[in-house]
Amino acid sequence: MDMLAVFTTVSSNDEAEVLARAAVERRLAACVQVEAIQSTYRWQGAIASEPEVRLMFKTSRALYPALEATLKSLHPYAVPAIFALPVVEASAEYEAWMEDAIGTGPAE
Amino acid sequence: MDMLAVFTTVSSNDEAEVLARAAVERRLAACVQVEAIQSTYRWQGAIASEPEVRLMFKTSRALYPALEATLKSLHPYAVPAIFALPVVEASAEYEAWMEDAIGTGPAE
Amino acid sequence: MDMLAVFTTVSSNDEAEVLARAAVERRLAACVQVEAIQSTYRWQGAIASEPEVRLMFKTSRALYPALEATLKSLHPYAVPAIFALPVVEASAEYEAWMEDAIGTGPAE
Repeated sequence: MDMLAVFTTVSSNDEAEVLARAAVERRLAACVQVEAIQSTYRWQGAIASEPEVRLMFKTSRALYPALEATLKSLHPYAVPAIFALPVVEASAEYEAWMEDAIGTGPAE
Repeated sequence: MDMLAVFTTVSSNDEAEVLARAAVERRLAACVQVEAIQSTYRWQGAIASEPEVRLMFKTSRALYPALEATLKSLHPYAVPAIFALPVVEASAEYEAWMEDAIGTGPAE
Repeated sequence: MDMLAVFTTVSSNDEAEVLARAAVERRLAACVQVEAIQSTYRWQGAIASEPEVRLMFKTSRALYPALEATLKSLHPYAVPAIFALPVVEASAEYEAWMEDAIGTGPAE
């Protein structure tokens, strides 16, 4: 399986739970890991710094388009950060678990 | 050096410390970073959400098999998540520090 | 845009804020995410474990050399960890937002 770690951020744990549950329920991600972060970025010409929550979705390259579309449809932000890093090694047992969890495509 | 960021998760800081110390002591990782996360996944047909602890090991591609084997042998889970992301840029000084810390193979 | 997630660690949120603001102000990163971690590593022959703060900078491959140089010039450590992971997928809207934030080079 060509695996990816997909990331997005939201502003609260409640918002994060909505995205995490949807992705796992629809078998678009095998698991989702959520953590507290502080984000610094440029907003309307000034430097802003806000607490946020980051999500890491473990999925396959084949499912990335469907996961991205689902995140966009459910996301509270107008332009959410959605990006993916490539997995280049994984234990065989974990890979088998991932395949069992998300197979090769979204639930019908 | 062909560097990797290797990830696994456990359920407590004590469990994390066992894996982190073993990897550094055996020179299978130059450093290990541990953080609190909340994990959502499918378990026996239902969606589960549990606090976990994620570890990021900085190592070389050459050492990945030995690190994976060590993590499996010490890990409290039956099927732990063990996967790696590729490092494509690093400062020369940091790379030298990594080589000094883990050389090219595990301690004899 | 050839995107990267660049990481470094410092020992406090105040130190993190200096690096995060400088990178965004100089348009060397579109955003910076900061989180609390615990680091384990070898120090003067012994295994050390210290609380740290990790930063993830979202930038372009073209800007990596300038970001690395800036982080080195401002970093409180003698040999900081500075490394980058490759982004292989991103939403078109997020990529456009990144290009708007950091264009193709540092602010003149």
